[in-house]
Amino acid sequence: MRPQEIIANKRDGQELSQREIEAFVNGVTNETWADYQISALLMAIFLRGFSLDEQNNLTKAMLESGDSIDFSDIDAPKADKHSTGGVGDKTSLIIAPMVAACGVSVPMISGRGLGHTGGTLDKLESIVGYNVNLTTEQFKQVIKSCGFAMSGQTKKLVPADRKLYALRDATATVESVPLIVSSVMSKKLVEGLDALVLDVKTGSGAFMQKSDDAKNLAAALVKTGNAFGVKTEAVISDMNQPLGKFVGNALEVFECIKILRGEIDASMSATLELSIELSARMLVLCGVVDTIQDSRFKIQDSLESGKALEKFRQNIELQNGNPNICDKPENLLDKSLIKIEIKAKTAGFVTEIDATAIGEAVSKIGGGRIKIEDKIDFAVGFECVKKLSDKLETGETMGFIFCRNQNQADLVYQKLVDAYKIRDEKPKEKFQLIKKII
Amino acid sequence: MRPQEIIANKRDGQELSQREIEAFVNGVTNETWADYQISALLMAIFLRGFSLDEQNNLTKAMLESGDSIDFSDIDAPKADKHSTGGVGDKTSLIIAPMVAACGVSVPMISGRGLGHTGGTLDKLESIVGYNVNLTTEQFKQVIKSCGFAMSGQTKKLVPADRKLYALRDATATVESVPLIVSSVMSKKLVEGLDALVLDVKTGSGAFMQKSDDAKNLAAALVKTGNAFGVKTEAVISDMNQPLGKFVGNALEVFECIKILRGEIDASMSATLELSIELSARMLVLCGVVDTIQDSRFKIQDSLESGKALEKFRQNIELQNGNPNICDKPENLLDKSLIKIEIKAKTAGFVTEIDATAIGEAVSKIGGGRIKIEDKIDFAVGFECVKKLSDKLETGETMGFIFCRNQNQADLVYQKLVDAYKIRDEKPKEKFQLIKKII
Repeated sequence: MRPQEIIANKRDGQELSQREIEAFVNGVTNETWADYQISALLMAIFLRGFSLDEQNNLTKAMLESGDSIDFSDIDAPKADKHSTGGVGDKTSLIIAPMVAACGVSVPMISGRGLGHTGGTLDKLESIVGYNVNLTTEQFKQVIKSCGFAMSGQTKKLVPADRKLYALRDATATVESVPLIVSSVMSKKLVEGLDALVLDVKTGSGAFMQKSDDAKNLAAALVKTGNAFGVKTEAVISDMNQPLGKFVGNALEVFECIKILRGEIDASMSATLELSIELSARMLVLCGVVDTIQDSRFKIQDSLESGKALEKFRQNIELQNGNPNICDKPENLLDKSLIKIEIKAKTAGFVTEIDATAIGEAVSKIGGGRIKIEDKIDFAVGFECVKKLSDKLETGETMGFIFCRNQNQADLVYQKLVDAYKIRDEKPKEKFQLIKKII
Repeated sequence: MRPQEIIANKRDGQELSQREIEAFVNGVTNETWADYQISALLMAIFLRGFSLDEQNNLTKAMLESGDSIDFSDIDAPKADKHSTGGVGDKTSLIIAPMVAACGVSVPMISGRGLGHTGGTLDKLESIVGYNVNLTTEQFKQVIKSCGFAMSGQTKKLVPADRKLYALRDATATVESVPLIVSSVMSKKLVEGLDALVLDVKTGSGAFMQKSDDAKNLAAALVKTGNAFGVKTEAVISDMNQPLGKFVGNALEVFECIKILRGEIDASMSATLELSIELSARMLVLCGVVDTIQDSRFKIQDSLESGKALEKFRQNIELQNGNPNICDKPENLLDKSLIKIEIKAKTAGFVTEIDATAIGEAVSKIGGGRIKIEDKIDFAVGFECVKKLSDKLETGETMGFIFCRNQNQADLVYQKLVDAYKIRDEKPKEKFQLIKKII
């Protein structure tokens, strides 16, 4: 079957057969389809959509495009969490050790940041020595030893996705439900999970800014997970402001260690709340706790008892990182940075925060990637002092830029000021971190 | 402006600005857009469409992507004809000498065949020695000497189109009105024409099989030509059967020389009729004749007086071909071919002919290209003995395959038999070669 014929069928709104979808994914994997043919089909899928059958067939074909991991020698139930990406979204680093401390294995294959969103692998690499490029064998050994591992995709796992993701990013075909679902779910399904909790972000810093789009995506992800025999649930969570206190790789790890150490301040509370909720749902889906309320208590206990922090320390050692940050989280912070205050121009209440703009500002000073090949400065970032609904006086601090020099600060200062909308009236709607469970 | 942003705007149904369209065409020409980004935008244009402004801006940007030809030292009016492509469509080789014989210059930049359709350059190359790769200077000199020249696009003329056309062919984005219009018109507008006649094919062998699609395309082409100051007219002509007697490169040149020599038989009459109509319209648009009826007489006279044949002979000499075919057209035919009869399985009337199937059969035995890089066997082809509405007895000859061996004949025999629909009742509709003038 020629690529042109398959492209033409989707272009004309026809449902692609399983054979056609397999031919496409094989063509991507073994490079018999040219990149320009792949991207033409991606755009046709974006605009014409996919049926549930097509979506499942694409997920299946991608899943089968490479190896999967054999966890048959691990007795513990296996659960994972995936977030659709946000700003300051660092829950993975808290969830994995908490859930592992409760007896559930977490084989967490993670990604890197691009554009305004961060990535777990980049955050972990701000820990000196931490190895995110484990072989499949090492990955399994780390999980066996401490209950969880966090690593990048090896070349043999879902190779079709790597190619498709890079092309989607370059061709404006990222925000397509069937393409997101097949990309996310194929990577999660190779982990051989019992349960999966999805954190679908909505709001100014999310890919799916509109609530309805987020709900549609969440429903499609859950349906696909369950279709492949994994107990799947989605939490729709707010991304109308950065999550928690910090945005920026080392700063976010610092926030996580502080939380794991119980040294929490108010601006970190959303990070903790969301981490507990997602973790608790993982335990319930795996059947290790019966009710969500009991599960929240169990997770909370893993934190307060220090067991979660111990799990993280073990993990860092096993993945070759320097575990001294567990005792001295301030070792993560680069003392040579300068800290520039972002001040409110008027008094009033914070009614809107453009989280995407904040993520982009951090990327711009080196904390993220504009292009895939960009190198990251792990130290730089942003501290969100004021959050939605907070009251401000003129000249009061809204946040801090952590940067290398004044030039960097000048480059993003105005963008950060403009990211905050300040109005006289306090917003009536109460801020709600967790919007819906699907 | 990043390619992604421009692609996203069209993807979301927005009208692209002149600046965005220029950025796209510049990106194609200077290779700062990747092929996969170009093809994603092509698919978005295919599915979202283009406004008249966008179409004109794309045509203009493509026209300006390379050199244009300066014909200021040629006093004669300049006219050209372009066909949207068909099967057995060889009118260019008759029109150019006839129109030149009537005092109008014809700077004919032509293309190659692909898929089921033939190309003028391939046909010309079946004349021994004929050079279709003239430099711009040679092209002008040939026109000055004999009134017309037929040559391929040089690399400097509309370079964006060469890239776009190859990508469209590989990504199922050929049949898009704005993409066809900008491709056709940019290549014709560099010729610095006074008049242009478009032969828009409709029917089983045309790209635009449906009459309404052909009318829309014709209207868009005419509107664009006139917007750029070229007097433009479109003839919608029938492509529900191969045009004239032969399909295949040397065989088609043979048919043209026979017509130019006045040695015509009934099965060539459609080729002649369409050639006269298109030529006559070129003369009227250029203002050298007042009425279409007078123009038809003038064209007919160029043929009957032998002036058109003399023009073709001069042209062949000037473009390094062997002009002896003007005296002995049978020299074009390869005597080593075998000629296989295609016989009717039942008696009745020919009610439908799948011209695309016939074109594809000829390509399959080497007479055309399946892929751009394929080499052509100029000699092979098909003779259409029976046409629409003709009566047939069981076992009567419908056509002949001209091929190298029995294997080739076996490869396409059934396809050719199936291309003819034979019914008991004679079709009520009378065959109409010229459907509409726009």
